[in-house]
Amino acid sequence: MSKEYPFIKACWGQPTDYVPVWLMRQAGRYLQQYKDVRAQGGGTFLDLCKDPARAAEVTIQPIDLLNVDAAILFSDILTPIEPMGMALDFVPGPVFEKPIRTAADVDALIVPDDMAQAVPYVPEILKRLRVAFEGRVPLIGFGGAPFTLACYMVEGHGSKDFAALKQMMYADFPLYDALMKKITEMDRRYLNMQIEAGAQAIQIFDTWGGLLAPHDFERYILPYVKELINGLNRDGIPVIYFVKNGGTMLELVKEAGADVVGLDWHVNLGKARDILGPEVAVQGNLDPTVLYAPKPYIEKEVQRILDENAGRPGFIFNLGHGILPTVPPENAIHMVECVHRLSRK
Amino acid sequence: MSKEYPFIKACWGQPTDYVPVWLMRQAGRYLQQYKDVRAQGGGTFLDLCKDPARAAEVTIQPIDLLNVDAAILFSDILTPIEPMGMALDFVPGPVFEKPIRTAADVDALIVPDDMAQAVPYVPEILKRLRVAFEGRVPLIGFGGAPFTLACYMVEGHGSKDFAALKQMMYADFPLYDALMKKITEMDRRYLNMQIEAGAQAIQIFDTWGGLLAPHDFERYILPYVKELINGLNRDGIPVIYFVKNGGTMLELVKEAGADVVGLDWHVNLGKARDILGPEVAVQGNLDPTVLYAPKPYIEKEVQRILDENAGRPGFIFNLGHGILPTVPPENAIHMVECVHRLSRK
Repeated sequence: MSKEYPFIKACWGQPTDYVPVWLMRQAGRYLQQYKDVRAQGGGTFLDLCKDPARAAEVTIQPIDLLNVDAAILFSDILTPIEPMGMALDFVPGPVFEKPIRTAADVDALIVPDDMAQAVPYVPEILKRLRVAFEGRVPLIGFGGAPFTLACYMVEGHGSKDFAALKQMMYADFPLYDALMKKITEMDRRYLNMQIEAGAQAIQIFDTWGGLLAPHDFERYILPYVKELINGLNRDGIPVIYFVKNGGTMLELVKEAGADVVGLDWHVNLGKARDILGPEVAVQGNLDPTVLYAPKPYIEKEVQRILDENAGRPGFIFNLGHGILPTVPPENAIHMVECVHRLSRK
Repeated sequence: MSKEYPFIKACWGQPTDYVPVWLMRQAGRYLQQYKDVRAQGGGTFLDLCKDPARAAEVTIQPIDLLNVDAAILFSDILTPIEPMGMALDFVPGPVFEKPIRTAADVDALIVPDDMAQAVPYVPEILKRLRVAFEGRVPLIGFGGAPFTLACYMVEGHGSKDFAALKQMMYADFPLYDALMKKITEMDRRYLNMQIEAGAQAIQIFDTWGGLLAPHDFERYILPYVKELINGLNRDGIPVIYFVKNGGTMLELVKEAGADVVGLDWHVNLGKARDILGPEVAVQGNLDPTVLYAPKPYIEKEVQRILDENAGRPGFIFNLGHGILPTVPPENAIHMVECVHRLSRK
């Protein structure tokens, strides 16, 4: 069944009748319906992630409203870090009160044997969604890449440069390596648990991977993400690897071994495909701020990206990063409609 | 005289006995001496920019302490926007209380005939510095690129995506164009005034230019920055154009017509030079966080970048962005010493 979804076919590089499309962060604040559900239960963003009924509901909203070709688990990349022993809060950005700085901190980190038990709401949401979507759209599971998770765990919160992690990486490689190995193993178990719970594809978000120079990416990121991807139960399950600001080192991003490379808008999609070669599918890459533009402009931009792809199979349309919270929903709907209409053969 | 400075020779692509080096934001908070001078006068950061005696003093500090090969005017890219009629504050990030949003706002913007009169402290600082540095190091003047200035003027403050400007650009190109033309003309007069006051090179900072997709850079940035650079009194004065996150569109960055392209650390310097060709000098590109690393690591990274340059003339060593405020000064000193020692022929 899963094999017939245009999104899944595109992940495998197979031709599709039209270009499938979804939007990163498609369940989110730009939708009044999302804000309503969020407000209903009261509580924090994290409470919403942990409430399977409401989390499932906000996941379904953009499928109904936008007519996108895939659903993605509603969660946060940092939720699996809590059971590693780190209390997490959102204020509204993520905050770990006790960041990782020493060997003792790394030693104390737990890698749960059973991730389904550690974050029970995640498999519960996935199971509900599979029932809701069966035969309609495939369901993407996701996680943060080890480096991006480490950024928050070591800095303790968001940052422009995540200097604390980079300092550790440069000054004490064995400590960095020990930390990254623990995160990678947790991540492997976490994503495999999602596959077992029904995820039909996996996206790995390396939001901060582009903070590193290419040779540092090769040394400090690539070995761990390779190990992660190699360790997934990928039989029939395509893996997407998205590195924000990875456009200057696509050859290295490709080496991670994912089936699909996610592209941000800083690259020309056609040139990126030339570099990556036909054996890798791509996903991207409209500048999220284009959704503030008038509708004819959005259509023109969709056409430009389709032109850059030039009909090559293995293409999933998406934004180059998450949809922005103040985008008018009708513009997102229009974008999806344009992708379908303009790409249909 | 100016012609003999290694920094200036490198800007022109001429061979030098060693690779010249300076650091973006080298007069700054990482130096206790800077913080002392800043505290002395009380007042804000903007007050320091407007006090020629203290501004000159903080400019001189890194020349004495770090032994760098160039000095750069102490100022902020937004200071020339004040005389355009926009009240500016730093809290601590820059804030324009009344951002530009309408045609009336753009119409009301002033392009001062005499920039020396509009920001009298800028030529005054430059004149003092020329006296202080004559025969020792050359003096770089600078300004923000039109797009980067527009980002702040339209958003009103710093932002991750400067959506307000992008919205204007997409939705009302004539308004965007009118704004950009006014900024470009102000910028041209501002930088020519700096040359007249003694600046021996000009750096144009396009900190936010990399927010745009390559085809948008071509349409919305390149024409204005080309016009700006063409309009400078460049006789004997090299121009450096630095686009943060410009690594995926170096061909377009080169088209702006500067003598030197500033590179951030997201590119391999050798590959960037291959793309840019021998007719353009380059400046860069150590990851600023490497200055948190142990000294031997810093030395290794300096060597790596020198190796990537492979002895090509027309190379100025720098960080890939401004020095971070918590870097230990001894590490910056060490970096400069390594560049000089390892590159000397």
